[in-house]
Amino acid sequence: MCPCCVAVTESIRLRLDLAYDGTEFSGWAIQPQRRTVQGVVEDAIATVLRIPAVTLTVAGRTDAGVHATGQVAHVDVAADVWRREQELLLRRLAGVLPADVRVRGVREVPAAFDARFGALWRRYDYRVCDRPEAISPLHRAFVLGWPRVLDVSTMQSAADALAGLHDFAAFCRRREGATTTRTLQRLTIERLEDEIVFTVQADAFCHSMVRSLVGALIAVGEGRREVGWPGALLGRDSRADDVPVAPAHGLTLVRVEYPADEELAERAEQTRARRD
Amino acid sequence: MCPCCVAVTESIRLRLDLAYDGTEFSGWAIQPQRRTVQGVVEDAIATVLRIPAVTLTVAGRTDAGVHATGQVAHVDVAADVWRREQELLLRRLAGVLPADVRVRGVREVPAAFDARFGALWRRYDYRVCDRPEAISPLHRAFVLGWPRVLDVSTMQSAADALAGLHDFAAFCRRREGATTTRTLQRLTIERLEDEIVFTVQADAFCHSMVRSLVGALIAVGEGRREVGWPGALLGRDSRADDVPVAPAHGLTLVRVEYPADEELAERAEQTRARRD
Repeated sequence: MCPCCVAVTESIRLRLDLAYDGTEFSGWAIQPQRRTVQGVVEDAIATVLRIPAVTLTVAGRTDAGVHATGQVAHVDVAADVWRREQELLLRRLAGVLPADVRVRGVREVPAAFDARFGALWRRYDYRVCDRPEAISPLHRAFVLGWPRVLDVSTMQSAADALAGLHDFAAFCRRREGATTTRTLQRLTIERLEDEIVFTVQADAFCHSMVRSLVGALIAVGEGRREVGWPGALLGRDSRADDVPVAPAHGLTLVRVEYPADEELAERAEQTRARRD
Repeated sequence: MCPCCVAVTESIRLRLDLAYDGTEFSGWAIQPQRRTVQGVVEDAIATVLRIPAVTLTVAGRTDAGVHATGQVAHVDVAADVWRREQELLLRRLAGVLPADVRVRGVREVPAAFDARFGALWRRYDYRVCDRPEAISPLHRAFVLGWPRVLDVSTMQSAADALAGLHDFAAFCRRREGATTTRTLQRLTIERLEDEIVFTVQADAFCHSMVRSLVGALIAVGEGRREVGWPGALLGRDSRADDVPVAPAHGLTLVRVEYPADEELAERAEQTRARRD
């Protein structure tokens, strides 16, 4: 390839900040014949940039029905395309995307930025209203209605036993060969007017982990399980079939945190060192 | 009528606190062949109380597409029906009502309570997002997207000239014989992250008044009108055709305030005295 062509095909990495209402999506990840967030956003970017296709790498592969206000993805595009389109890109994406998904920000990041493997932590909110007559009609798409009153302080006591570095196998849908050990950095429960908000933060989550933690805590909150039950499950090495998985629509990915740009390379090296 | 029957048909007054997503309703007030909040709630109450029909009196007759989180209505029902059903009424209404409307509370009030004429003031919020790429997908049913950036402090200066007792004819759809003089107690504008919230409170509102005030202020906020323009319109005695009416879906009735129960009779007397 001549030096000129090399220059033209030089690629740069973009960070995308996204929000979506998961109601009408079959989750993040592309699936044939399904409407997925990844599919819709990749198509919109390709349309606006007038290129054949792009591939997004995402921080949290949310399931069908799960929402996001703070999702992050990265994508590599040709530098000349970015320079040509960057000024109007956000506005044009807003015009092309359906109203249930927004690209809220796009910016150039170092090549060392990785939306998936570079994240320091992910934070999810799970919202429950335990008075069926009080579920806000304006919030009903992202709040679970629960027919029985939940005791927040009992749930918090149960949650405290779950924080820290543990094997969360009991709370995960198994994936062959993948570890289920995670650091649960925060699991707090707060009653805000008519909504109970579970805030769950970890370095990473395995499949259906947040919804299983919430399902177990709800069982405690309504008095169906003892306060020590969720913590006692941490000993198991496989999924506990009696842990209910809370419905998807109460769950929202609210934030993903990354190192500062100048620390990305260092963190990548640390990750590499841990793997060796 | 024998004394026994008189006792049976004694009626009591109930206060209902309501919330609804106005998207799929043709407004509050019953209209033939239309889905209205009043129609849906009256039917649900009659079903649950097992009586032929009830008639609600409401604080704010919201237009098609307008939402409420703090709507108030009253209804008179036979005392024996209330005594028989009161314990389970809220739960049973929650089961019968569609998810886009909730009766959040029901309580017995003095006969002097009047949801419409007894209100001290009504408060509405109007929400606008002036970055099309940032409209929260989860809030899009109740936030207006605006394509140009709005200057909040200029809008607040314009709003300050509107507060107080004025003839708001320029901002009202005329209704024959009705006064358009109102006391605008509060009109504040605040930017909360990606949403601009207009809070508008008055003793009462005439038709389309909040949406006209917001429409005029948006024209100021985007620089299309001078800051003194909305205030100057207060002199007119009829609707100003160049005042845009902001779309319905950004508007939410958030609160209606009443005197304490023991002051209801006194207030009714004051209202009567003012009318004489």
